[in-house]
Amino acid sequence: MKVKLVSNILDANTAMAAENRRRFQQEKIFVLNLMSAPGAGKTSILEKTIARLKDRVSMAVIEGDICTTKDAERIAALGVEAVQINTDGACHLDANMMASALANLELNSLDLLVVENVGNLVCPAEFDLGEDLKAMVLSVTEGNDKPFKYPLMFRESKAILVNKIDLLPYTEFDVEALRRDLAEINPGAEVFLVSARTGEGIEAWASWLERKVKEKKDF
Amino acid sequence: MKVKLVSNILDANTAMAAENRRRFQQEKIFVLNLMSAPGAGKTSILEKTIARLKDRVSMAVIEGDICTTKDAERIAALGVEAVQINTDGACHLDANMMASALANLELNSLDLLVVENVGNLVCPAEFDLGEDLKAMVLSVTEGNDKPFKYPLMFRESKAILVNKIDLLPYTEFDVEALRRDLAEINPGAEVFLVSARTGEGIEAWASWLERKVKEKKDF
Repeated sequence: MKVKLVSNILDANTAMAAENRRRFQQEKIFVLNLMSAPGAGKTSILEKTIARLKDRVSMAVIEGDICTTKDAERIAALGVEAVQINTDGACHLDANMMASALANLELNSLDLLVVENVGNLVCPAEFDLGEDLKAMVLSVTEGNDKPFKYPLMFRESKAILVNKIDLLPYTEFDVEALRRDLAEINPGAEVFLVSARTGEGIEAWASWLERKVKEKKDF
Repeated sequence: MKVKLVSNILDANTAMAAENRRRFQQEKIFVLNLMSAPGAGKTSILEKTIARLKDRVSMAVIEGDICTTKDAERIAALGVEAVQINTDGACHLDANMMASALANLELNSLDLLVVENVGNLVCPAEFDLGEDLKAMVLSVTEGNDKPFKYPLMFRESKAILVNKIDLLPYTEFDVEALRRDLAEINPGAEVFLVSARTGEGIEAWASWLERKVKEKKDF
C-alpha cells in the first residue's frame, strides 16, 4: 500500500512535469536542475557561473530551500532575478512547486532558468521538474565513496561537478577512484573538476552549459 | 489529503517507535540515533568512538544506507557487531526498519546501540526510531549557515558534533556564528568540536556518551 501511494504521487508529479516541459519548449528556455548534498557548494558555483554567463545569456534562478531566503538573496545581489521556494519541511522540489514559481517569472525573456534544488543527495533525484538537464555537485570533502551509496542522483545527472578541489591536498579524496565508479554508474556523464572558491574549472563548466542553452535556442 | 497522509505515516511510525523504546527500556540499552548530511563523517566519527568505548561498554551498530554494505563493513572490521539496513531508495530510517534490524541483535548483551542513519540533513529528523538520544554531525566544509536552513535536525539533536575542524584554516567556516545560531535554535544542545581524522575532540564526545549510557544502566 505504501508503495502504491508513492507511485501515485510520482505519477501526478510526472504529469505536472510534462506540462512544465511543454512550456519551456514553447518559450525555448533551457532549464537546469542543480542538485547536491547540503553544503556541497551549489550556490557558490551558481554565483561564479552567473558572473560568467549573465551578459551572454538571459537567465533567472529558482532557489529551493526548506527555510530562509539566504540563497535567493545571494543570487539577487548579482543582479539576476531569483525566486525563492520555501518547501516548509519538504526535502525536495516537485513539479507543482516549480509550476508555482514560474508564475513569478517573465518566461519569454529568458534563455536559461537554473533551479537550485534542496540540499539532499537522495529525494530530489526522484522528482522530474520538467527540466532539460539534471546536474549535481559532489564536494571532495564528502568522500569519493558516494556514487555507489547514492546511485540515483549520480545516474540521473548529465553533468557532475566535483567541487572544492582546492581542498584535495587536505583530504583522502581519490579522483581516479571516483572516475572509475562513475564510468560504471553513468559512463556518459560529463565530469568537471571545479573550485567555486578559486574559480578553477568554472569556465569549462559555464561554457559547456552555455552551449547547451544555445543548442536549444537554435533548435 | 497529502498532509493527512503524511500524518498517518508519521502516526504509525510513532506507535512503532514507542514499542522499540519499550524494548530498549526493558533491556536497559541506550540507543543513539546519529544523523548528518552525506559525507559529514558519521562513520569516521563512529570508528574513533568505537576505538575508545568498545572495551568500556558493550556495543553494536545498525547502519542505515540506501545501498551497499560499505559502512557496516568498516564497523565490523573493528570487532563490533554491525547490522546493515538497506533502505532501497528511502531517504531515512523509520521505526519499522529499526524493529526489523533488532531481530538480528542479542539485545540483552548490549549497553549501547548506535544507529547510523541515512546521510540526509532533512528527513531522518522527522522519524522517531525509539532512540534515547538524537545526535548530528555538521562538517565545517558544509558551511556555518546550515542551522537556519535545516532547522529540524539542529533542533532535535541533543548533541551536535562539528567535524573536520582540521580543515578550519582552509574554509570560511565561522564557529562563533554557528554557536550564536545554535544558541537561538537549540540552546540546550551540547556542541563538540571534533576531527575524526586527527582524533581531536573525540575523547570529550566519547566520555559524554559513555556517561549517558551508564546513567541509563544505573537508573
